This record gives sequence, C-alpha cells and structure tokens, in this order.
Amino acid sequence: MTQSWVTGANRADCDFPLSNLPYGVFEVSGRPPRCGIAIGDMILDLTELVTNGLLTGDDYGFDRPALNHFMAAGPKAWETVRNRVTDLLADGGSAELRENVALCRQALVPQATAQMHLPIEVKGYTDFYAGRQHAFNSGSILRGPENALTPNWSHMPIGYNGRASTVVVSGTPVRRPLGQTLPGGSATPVLGPSRRLDIEVEFGAIVGLPTELGQTLTVDEAWEHLFGFVLLNDWSARDIQRWEGQPLGPFQSKAFATSISPWVVTRAALEPCRHPAPLRDTELLPYLHENAPYFFDITLEAHLTPADTDRASRIVQTNTTHLTYSAPQLLAHHALSGCRMQSGDLLGSGTISGPERHNFGCLMEQSWGGRDEIALEHGGSRKFLEDGDSVTLTGWGMVNGQRIGFGRCEGQILPAPQQIGKAG
Amino acid sequence: MTQSWVTGANRADCDFPLSNLPYGVFEVSGRPPRCGIAIGDMILDLTELVTNGLLTGDDYGFDRPALNHFMAAGPKAWETVRNRVTDLLADGGSAELRENVALCRQALVPQATAQMHLPIEVKGYTDFYAGRQHAFNSGSILRGPENALTPNWSHMPIGYNGRASTVVVSGTPVRRPLGQTLPGGSATPVLGPSRRLDIEVEFGAIVGLPTELGQTLTVDEAWEHLFGFVLLNDWSARDIQRWEGQPLGPFQSKAFATSISPWVVTRAALEPCRHPAPLRDTELLPYLHENAPYFFDITLEAHLTPADTDRASRIVQTNTTHLTYSAPQLLAHHALSGCRMQSGDLLGSGTISGPERHNFGCLMEQSWGGRDEIALEHGGSRKFLEDGDSVTLTGWGMVNGQRIGFGRCEGQILPAPQQIGKAG
Repeated sequence: MTQSWVTGANRADCDFPLSNLPYGVFEVSGRPPRCGIAIGDMILDLTELVTNGLLTGDDYGFDRPALNHFMAAGPKAWETVRNRVTDLLADGGSAELRENVALCRQALVPQATAQMHLPIEVKGYTDFYAGRQHAFNSGSILRGPENALTPNWSHMPIGYNGRASTVVVSGTPVRRPLGQTLPGGSATPVLGPSRRLDIEVEFGAIVGLPTELGQTLTVDEAWEHLFGFVLLNDWSARDIQRWEGQPLGPFQSKAFATSISPWVVTRAALEPCRHPAPLRDTELLPYLHENAPYFFDITLEAHLTPADTDRASRIVQTNTTHLTYSAPQLLAHHALSGCRMQSGDLLGSGTISGPERHNFGCLMEQSWGGRDEIALEHGGSRKFLEDGDSVTLTGWGMVNGQRIGFGRCEGQILPAPQQIGKAG
Repeated sequence: MTQSWVTGANRADCDFPLSNLPYGVFEVSGRPPRCGIAIGDMILDLTELVTNGLLTGDDYGFDRPALNHFMAAGPKAWETVRNRVTDLLADGGSAELRENVALCRQALVPQATAQMHLPIEVKGYTDFYAGRQHAFNSGSILRGPENALTPNWSHMPIGYNGRASTVVVSGTPVRRPLGQTLPGGSATPVLGPSRRLDIEVEFGAIVGLPTELGQTLTVDEAWEHLFGFVLLNDWSARDIQRWEGQPLGPFQSKAFATSISPWVVTRAALEPCRHPAPLRDTELLPYLHENAPYFFDITLEAHLTPADTDRASRIVQTNTTHLTYSAPQLLAHHALSGCRMQSGDLLGSGTISGPERHNFGCLMEQSWGGRDEIALEHGGSRKFLEDGDSVTLTGWGMVNGQRIGFGRCEGQILPAPQQIGKAG
C-alpha cells in the first residue's frame, strides 16, 4: 500500500490515508471558505494547487465554498483530480509539491486550525428507509410485529423528501424542537419541547452528476452519478413524529436538524470496501436489478457524552451491510418518475440497525419505544436524549489494515426555546 | 380606482391592472432573463429602470434570473418598489417614464414576445393539506368517511416536504411518470406508466424574508415574511401514490412535476381580497391563533383541453376561502421546530375543494376514486388525464369590478418514456 509523505497519513488509526482523499470545505483565517482534501492531519488546499499551476485543466470551482461545481463535472473529472492528487502526495510520486517547502506551508493546512463548513450546497435531501431491521423494529413498536413492514417495503426503497435547509455540518448545535404532541390517554395535543429526542445513524450518498427533468436511470447508470458518501445523523423527535406522521409522513419531527460529516468520502476511495447485496425474500422488478456489488462494508458507531462528563459511551455499533437497498438503487428509484436529480442532492439510507440490541441505530429501537432504559458504559442511562448530551458518529471501512474513515459527525443538544417568535 | 397609461391595464378582463403589479422573470431576445412587473399587456423591465436612474437606492438584484434576492430584502423594500412603480405607471403620476418615449420602448416589453421563466429559485417546496373538504374527500375515498380525517388534522396544518427540483414554470410539458403500482387484486407490483394521472388545484405562498436556524415565528410575524402568491398545480400519479404512500407519505407520485404561474402576486396587491378565517370545529393551540383576517377570497378555475381540440372545458371552479389554514399559519407551523425558512421557499396549500362536485380541486375527487366519468362540457369525458391533455389554471380576486389576476398556469401531458435509462 502506497504511503504518503504527509504527517500522520500512514498511522493505522488515521481516517485519512493516501488511499482515502475525501473532499470538504474548510476555512482558515485569511482565506474564504474553499474546497480541500484531507490527508493525515492536514488539509490540502486545492485552490493553492490551481493558483500555483500544480492542478491544471478545467475550472473545477475549488475556490467556491461548496463541492457542487466540481461534482457536476462528472466521473472523468473526479478520476483526473484523484490521480493527480495521489501522485502529488505519494512517497515516490511527483516532487512538485513535496519538494517545494514554501508551497507546502501554504497548501497544507493543519486540520486543527481549520473550521469546517458544509461540504456541499444541499440541493435536495431525501431520506430513505432502506434497512430491513430498522423498518421491522420501528414498525413493530408502532403497529406490532405482524404489521411491521408495509407490503411495499420489500419491493422498492421507501423514502420521503426531507428538509434540505436544515442539513448542518458536524459541530453545529442542535436545538431541541418545540412541537405538538399528544399526551398518552389524551385526545387533545399540547405544545412543548419534544421529550423523545433521538438520533438516527445513517449513511448519506451524494449525487454528483445531475439528470434532466424526465430522465430515468438504470442502477448501473445511477452508480456513475454518485460522487461520494457522508455520515448522517437524522435527529428525530419521536413524540412529534408520532402525532404528525399520518397520513403524509414525517415533517417537523425531522425538520430541525440533520447533521453530516464534513468529509465526503468518494466512491473511488470506497471501491475496495464494496460488498454484495443481501439475500432478499422478494424478487425485485428489473429496474432495480444490480449487475455488480453496490453495497459497502462500513462500520458505523455512535457515542454519547452527557453534559457532566467528557467520557463518551458507545451506544451504537452497526454496519452498512445491514442495508437492503444500495445507494444506486435509491437513486434509480428516485429518478424513475423523471424527477430531476441535482448535483448536491443528499440521499440518506435511513437508520441502519443490525440484529442485536446494541446494533440498533436509534434510541427508539434500543429503548423499544421508551420502554427500557439504555445503560451507558460510563454511568447513567438514557431512553432518549437530554439537554447537553453530545452524540458523535464515526465510520470507516478497513482495507489491508488501513482505515478509510469518515471523520466525525457530532452535535450537542441545546434546550428548547422558551417562547414562540422574536421574543423566544 | 387609479388608472394606468399602459395599454390594456384598465380593461375589465385584464389580470394585471395598476393595483396588481405582480413580479416575474422574463426573457426577450438580446437580454438575459431578468425580473419584471406585469402591467396590462406589457412587462416593465426593472433593470432598465435601474440602469436609467428611475429606480434608485439599494441593489435589489433585478438583473438576476430570480426574485430571491429582492424578496430577501424584506417588506420595507417591497413597499418602496411598489410605491415607486405605481407612481411611474399611474395616470397623473410621475412623468419620468411616461413622457420618455425612448425609455418606454426599451423598458416596456410586450408579454406576447417574452418567454417566462420560473419567477423564483425554489429553495424548498412544502405541500400542505389545508383544505377540509379535500382532506375529507380523499380520506373518504381511501379509508371511508368515518376515518376520513386523521385526528391531527383539526389541530394543525398537516404537510410534507415536496420535491423542489421539479417545480416548473407554466408551459413546461409534463411527462407521464413511470412507477410501481399494485394492480387490483394482485399482491405483486408492476412497473409502468401511471394510469391515474391527476391535477391538484392549489394556491402557493412564497416566503420572502428568511428565518435563522432555530428561530420560530408567530402567525403575525409569519405574515410579514410572506412575499406573494402563485397558482400551483401539484400533478399527482394516484396509482403510484396509493402503492408507495405508506408509511412515509407521497414521494415519486408527486416528484415528476409541479407547475406554478410565472407571476407572483404580492401580498400588498391582495390586501383588498383579505378574508376572515372559516369557522373551525376545534380550538387551535395559541401558536396558531390569528389576530387578523389572513385568508383571501380568490376564485380558482381549471380548464382541460384534449389533444384533438382547441376548446377548453372548465373542470374545476373553487375558491381559496375553502381553506382551513391560512398561509401564515402554514409558515408559523413550518418554523415551529426551528426549521430554517428561506427566501424562495414555496408552500402549497394542498388541493382546494368546495362543497359541490364541480368545486372539487382534483380529478380523483371528481371521479370519486375513478368510479365516475367526468363529462367535459365540449364533449368527451375523463376519469384521469390522457396523453396530450392540457390543463390550465387561472385565478383572480375581484376589487371594485377589477381583476387582481394570476395569469395562467398550464401544462400538457407527454407520453411516458418507453425505457429506463439513457436508452429511454
């Protein structure tokens, strides 16, 4: 495995070795937000490469505060840049950057000094429900195990449009939402802060290459349209969701915040983590057929840190292999109606739950609808989130003992507003 | 009522008198798309006013191909521009434009020569379900009259996130979508063109002034954030909707196209059309209380023209007074969770149906779930739309015998694609 000359990139516990090269948008003092690539402990400033003639050719818009322009350039462009940056950062590769000390000082920025922004302008956010265990668990809690899965679930990826305007980058605090809920035994709703605030551990796919209005995609074509992947925490207010959710689906219960990791790990980087489709109990319609393994083997974890401690307790351990529908299947189904797909569309997998309790990807499942306390390994317990709690998602694939990591996706819960409107 | 010196503006059948002044984005040969105001048969090019010093002060971005920048400037700016343009176009007002023949020729463009674009960059599209008759009718068709309304319906505006990327301007053809449907009596879905393609006659509200993440709004504050209104046709594939819609709500069945009128009629123009709230059978929670009449009295019609004729048959006649929740109530509820609202968010009212069959705002209701044929006044009948059908929405308020009109919102149905993917 090729090593990099950049500090930290070859450490076994590093998320960002030479074979990863995820994209993000960063800001350091004196430079407006712009696109960069994580390598070891550093960020490679792509605008500096362009300015200094080390990255030539098309204008990929790396000086913009979002990857959308570059993503729309398509797979050939993505490959060209990846190959060039790999060469510049590899031991034994081109010396143009490595041996230019002044440029290195300018173009390599310590991650510790950078503020990360949303990596993409999120054009549309669609959240699916593509993991069978989660669909079965949440259906069982709401409707009992015999009615857990609606009949459509086994035939297509069920999804809904989420709220794009409140997708936020890791580190953004999450204010507990106000909403209508129906107290147990009551026929009349009340207004107040959600009392059942939850996480959802998800895997987010990002559309790079857009489609035209009316254009459809095969699964194989959809694969080529995908640029990369992020960690995604779809914060959810279960009590608001329960009251509002019928007949049109979740709305304000999931509109207050959705956190994503600042680094977009590309499809190319995850190539060695590809994984075959799960056994399915239903034959899918031909438009959802897969001609290749389009799943990934990515370990996902969530840790919770209460406000009064700095010790993080692991609360979820799961894996993307528990999904039933792959990212290109989600995209092919999304485009089936002729729905225009945009560079910067974010497709959430839905909560990813494995077979055991500690593999369940949200607190509602782990506490089985709020029935059971979830013990935290460093003391205390939870059914749902409390004010001051921080939740951190991490994720990685393993390739020859090296992590292809996603960094962190975290958020801390702030108390709900005291009042409605300007006074609040 | 003040008259205008512009051709056609004072005709009784004109949608765009001096008291209207709706905003749109137009293109004529030789000029890039830009913002304008409809007056009579003409469009006032606001960039020409700015360039020639007739509209001074802040930069409202009228040379851009969307109103978002101007809308974000807020109610004071909207009032300033409206007052100035009224003065320039009124009989007896400022002569600066009227008596400058060369500038008139440059700044007043015949609507007949202009191509209209989407008036706004649609940031988010949220569709509600705010009319009781429609909610009751469609619930009755699906679940029977005793279960027609879910218990939450009377306590809050039920809505879902729609697909913003496929909101299109009037005149854009609408391709019949492919999708999964479940044939009657079958347990296995099939793929094919929707056979139950429908319209939904709606009233769209456009958010002008944005909110911050975590900010909530009272209904009175929400009113101030609303810039204007459009006609909206939420094309729907009922057979796809029926199969996909549970448990997460409509998705691909409404993702292929949503048409809006090119002209945004401002809140100021509709001031004389304000209407009190309907009697409700349920006391709303205080955050939804209204301190003023926030409804409008706007007549809405839909006409259908089959491919083999040019005679349009009126199929729907309804009115926005049939809504149960007002636009500022929709917005206040939308922001309740702290959801960030954006300049350019579009809020659909949901289908507006009145008490009689011909007042029902979609074909599913008029044909009662496809049971009855709907006779067309100029011959033929429909249960749902056929390829080649054109549907046109119109709408207007009446003030002292003068129309405050919305122009037209139309679309023609194209056949479904023959194949999936590039080959299709």
